[in-house]
Parts: sequence; C-alpha cells; structure tokens
Amino acid sequence: MLYEINEKALKLESEGKKIIRLNLGDPDLATPPEIVEAAYAAMKAGKTKYSSSYGEKKLREKIAELHGVKAENVVITPGSKWGIFATMFLMMKGGGNVIIPTPYWTAYDLIAKTLGAQTKLLRTELENDWKVDLDKLEKLIDKDTKMIILNNPNNPTSKVMDAKTLDGIVEIANKKKITILSDEVYATIAFTKTKSILGYGGDCKHILSNGFSKTFTMTGWRIGYIIANKPFIDNITKLNQITINNVPVFIQEAALKGLEMREKLSSKIKEVYEERAKMASKTLAKAGFAFSKPEAPFYVFPKRDGLDSEKFTLEMLDKGVAVAPGTSFGDYREHFRISLTAPSDDIKVALDKICEAVG
Amino acid sequence: MLYEINEKALKLESEGKKIIRLNLGDPDLATPPEIVEAAYAAMKAGKTKYSSSYGEKKLREKIAELHGVKAENVVITPGSKWGIFATMFLMMKGGGNVIIPTPYWTAYDLIAKTLGAQTKLLRTELENDWKVDLDKLEKLIDKDTKMIILNNPNNPTSKVMDAKTLDGIVEIANKKKITILSDEVYATIAFTKTKSILGYGGDCKHILSNGFSKTFTMTGWRIGYIIANKPFIDNITKLNQITINNVPVFIQEAALKGLEMREKLSSKIKEVYEERAKMASKTLAKAGFAFSKPEAPFYVFPKRDGLDSEKFTLEMLDKGVAVAPGTSFGDYREHFRISLTAPSDDIKVALDKICEAVG
Repeated sequence: MLYEINEKALKLESEGKKIIRLNLGDPDLATPPEIVEAAYAAMKAGKTKYSSSYGEKKLREKIAELHGVKAENVVITPGSKWGIFATMFLMMKGGGNVIIPTPYWTAYDLIAKTLGAQTKLLRTELENDWKVDLDKLEKLIDKDTKMIILNNPNNPTSKVMDAKTLDGIVEIANKKKITILSDEVYATIAFTKTKSILGYGGDCKHILSNGFSKTFTMTGWRIGYIIANKPFIDNITKLNQITINNVPVFIQEAALKGLEMREKLSSKIKEVYEERAKMASKTLAKAGFAFSKPEAPFYVFPKRDGLDSEKFTLEMLDKGVAVAPGTSFGDYREHFRISLTAPSDDIKVALDKICEAVG
Repeated sequence: MLYEINEKALKLESEGKKIIRLNLGDPDLATPPEIVEAAYAAMKAGKTKYSSSYGEKKLREKIAELHGVKAENVVITPGSKWGIFATMFLMMKGGGNVIIPTPYWTAYDLIAKTLGAQTKLLRTELENDWKVDLDKLEKLIDKDTKMIILNNPNNPTSKVMDAKTLDGIVEIANKKKITILSDEVYATIAFTKTKSILGYGGDCKHILSNGFSKTFTMTGWRIGYIIANKPFIDNITKLNQITINNVPVFIQEAALKGLEMREKLSSKIKEVYEERAKMASKTLAKAGFAFSKPEAPFYVFPKRDGLDSEKFTLEMLDKGVAVAPGTSFGDYREHFRISLTAPSDDIKVALDKICEAVG
C-alpha cells in the first residue's frame, strides 16, 4: 500500500491540496548546491554519453577506498533499489526462498514476489527491542534458502542492529553457506555506530547495498552501489548492460562530489534528523504511543493498541498528512511509519494532527 | 560480443590509446545546450526528489500528443532498453517464446535468454533487401509464442520496413493474438517515412518502445518510454516502483525541452547522418563491400564473402577502430556493423583502415 499512498498523495497535491508528506524517506532538504554544480559542469563537459555498465572508474575507486575493498568489488546502480533487485534477480534464479526479518522495507517483499521467490519472514517486535531471535533464524533456514536480507539501520524502525546479534547472524549464515545482502543505506548517517557486513572478512562473501539518496539528499538522482565479490559484480554488470545500461555519468560525477564532502554533509544531516527525532519522540510519548527511540534517520514506527493502520493512514491523508501504514512493512497492523522528512514546522503540525486523530 | 568490445575499447582508451569508436550508436554530437540548461534549471529548482514511477505528467502528455494516444498510455523509462526489458519481463513470465527477425539488436536476444524465454529467430537477408517473409513468420508462431519484436528502422541494417510488409505482420499477429513490441527508436530521424505500430488502431493493442537518445543526442541521459494499453502501463509502473523508481525529474524536464525543439533538432541530425551515410556508402561500395543503403541513422551493415567478423573486429580494435561483429546481431558472420557516430574526419580514417584491412 506504500506506493499507492504515494501516488494518491501526489494526485491530491496536483489537485491543489496541501499534503504534509511524511510517507517516504525523501528528505525535505535540498541537494547541496556543490553537487548540483558538479552535475552541471559534467554535462557541459559532454559527459552525456553511454558509459561503462560497471560505473565510472574514479567513483568505484573512491567507494572502494571508503569501504576498504577493491574497485573491482563495486558496481554503480541507478539507486540502491535497483542494486537490490539485481542482486535478488541473480540470487533467486531457479526459485528458492529468502529470509527477511520484519518489519522490513516493502520493496524486498515485492521484489521477491515479482521474481516468484518465496519469502520467509522472521518477526521481530517492539516489545523485544526489535531483536532478531537467532534460534528462530537458524530453524527458518532450509535447503532452499538462498539468502538473508538485513536492513541495518532498519527502515521503518530506525533501529541499529547490535553488534552481537549481527555476529550471530553472520555465524549462522556462514555455517549454512547462505549469502547475506545487507542494505546499509542509512548507516553513514546513523546516530549510533553501525557495524557493516563488510566487517566480516575482506573476501566479500556477503553483499552490501548502499546509496547516495539518504546521505547526500540525492533521492531523485537515482544512484547507489553494490559491493560484492568480483564474479557477482560482473554478473550485475551483465544485467545492467541489458537493462539500465549505465547511470548517467554526470550523476556519477555529482555523487563523487558528494563523497568528497562526505564528513561535512553527513554530520549536518545527522544533526537535523537527530533533533527532529527527539522532537517527534517527545510528542508521540506524551500522546501515549509506544515506539523505540530512533537511532538513525528518518523514521519513527509508533504503535497504538487496537489501531487499524490502513484505515488510519487513509483518514490522515484526508486530513492532509501522508504517513505509511504498518502493514506495508509486514504484519504490523497497530503500527504506522512517520518519515521526519518535512520541515520541522510541518512535522509539528502533522504530529499534532496525528495525536489528535487517535484522541 | 558487442558489450565486451565496448568495455575493451573503453579500457584501451583509459590506457591512453586512440580508438575511433564506431561500435555503438552513441552520436559524437553533443547534447544540445538548451537541453543541458533545462536540466540545470530543474535541478536548481529542487526537482531532485523521488517522483512518480509513471513519469512526469507534463512529459507523458506531450509524448501522448505527438503519438496520438492518451497520457495514461505512456510510461517513462530510464532508456528505451529498460522499457524493452520491462515489457519482456512482464510478457514472458511463465515461459514461452518470442519471435525476433534477424539481424536484431543484441539486447533483445540477451534479455530473452536472461529471462529464460525461448527465442525464435526469423532470418532476413541482404540479398532479399532484408524483407520479412510473411509465410515463414506465420509458420514460426506456435501456441507458446507470446510476442514478436520489430525494430523499425532496423539496427544494424538502417532499413525501414516497407508499409506492406508491416501491414502483413500486424495482420498475422492480430489473427494469432500475438502482441508486437515495436522498437521505433530511430523512426523520428529516419531518412524515409516510417510507419508506426500505433498506426493500426488507437486501442494500443501493440506496444511501442521509443527513446530520447538518438533523436536528441541524449544517449547517456537514459530516458525513453513505452506506449501501451493502460493495464500494461500500470504493470510496468509497478515494476518501476520496485526497481528504478523513477527517471530523475530534471532529466525528464530536459527531455521535455528536447520535444519542444523536436523539428529543429531532428532535421539537423538527419542532415548530418544522411551526409555521413552517403560518404560511407561511396567508400564501402568502391572497396567492394555489399550492403543496403542506410534509410536511417546510424549504421551500415556491410558484408564481405568469407569474412570472419569476430576475428576482423578484434584486428580492427588493435588498429584503433572499434566496430561490431555481425555475429552480435544474429548469424551474420560475414557482416560487421559500422556506427557513423564519430566526427566525419575520424569516420574517413576508420573507413580507409577498414578497406585497407580487407585488402
């Protein structure tokens, strides 16, 4: 229902209605002007041609350097979503199942279903601080399990996985020879240190997905990357060759500029969102919502006993506030997701309307 | 081998070698400055956010107007290649076969194979002016045939399909209830009038693929579109939602600017390439190559009896000229494809080297 809500919100806006859009992880902040200028300079320099389906060498090298891998382990993708689709497309060929802890980012499940793959959901709960139960995970793995998808920090909970749990998951995956795809798109801007899947040996046995959208406020630019072993990178590149071909080079130059300004930009983003998270937490706690304190941008995933979140979401849309129902992230009917991606004053108005609506 | 040649050519260039690249349909002409400025203005106006997976309303409306369909029949894709992949992904679900006349654009076959679909190739030949044999087509269709892919004008032959043959193909397809995907990416800039698949009834029974790359020298921008019936457009949009999400809005604005300047830009491109085609035809004829006169940009597909085109292509790459072997377009070992997409002086040098190499 996540994408339907979005198309509906866009339609209402195009009809002139004011909608405070807290339904997507699309920051209200503008793309930094230095990044825009880098793209423009590249366009004017004629970097508007077909290019390598691996991505530009300079950008791959810079990414490799930041993650402590080789450039041959990096492929540039049009958004991290495409990287995840491509990874799942390649991994799930010939069927099998994928284990996904819930709540999850909607796209994992939709991609799996579109590819005809079976999903095995591993429920985590607010009451248990969203921890993955390692015994349950191990029991869920069967002979047809091809991969485990982690999202760390998590969307929609903004929870960072504790290192011990991650250690345990990797140990099980290694023992059972299952590949982990770790989507770490919020890691650079997390408020707490986040352990990367790349921290478990330099042979890229597991796969990292990352993007520029969140760290550099570049959502609509569509650029991300996959880090994996070389044969897998070669296979994604072959898929790129017959689908998206390449990410526009001027967009890759813009992303490179972002990486060069990484420290400055990410600390600014962290600061803004940590403040918003505090403000939202205060309001929601006061109104009696249950939730875990966000440890990363951009989301809060509050719960209210007895809530029908789909009904609630549609009601809120009528009141000019777009949020996402908990059912978009698994079996979480009593939760809904607020993205803190509007100007603070708008968020305040929206939070008040939300609190008022649940009375 | 087409993409391998390209990666190899890029690698040689990165090592400082001068390669005249006539291996891809990537025009040497720069993207018109008005288009670059439109993108820049849109970026500065903050059009850098997530957007609709259908594409921007204004752009869809303009495209619909030009093709005489409704905006609901149009979806914007990151390049026509993605549109073709998405169409085949949806059409070939659950197996079946696709009929493709040869010589064909490499990607059709690679996509089909990647999707696990069977391809049924329908050979056409230079000696018969690249005409599709309607009887053979009808016999090739079986109960598992899901679609026919046409490329009109054709890559690599630059041949425009005569209206009578197209009428015949559509008649057979309609009778057998087979969907045609017509890739018309070279149609706007063809030297001869090209009949569109949309010329057969306004109900969008068949599917049109098109892009901005060739008409507006926007290859590396990655933007194209699919025109089809509404339910099919909705399905591509759902696939977009879990893969590419959206084409950057600033790129869509750039494409819109291109459409506004369509007459002017396309006649300029036609003029340049018609001149190059004439020049190449003269040189190649003189050296005894057999080929059909290009009726559209950008290719010539010469033949020489006894040629081993893969060997020849690698030899030419060593001599600083990248072309594409005929085997990349089907069973055409004695052909190779020259893209007239370098400055005329470079093309002349390359043609001389080619003629010299075959002695």
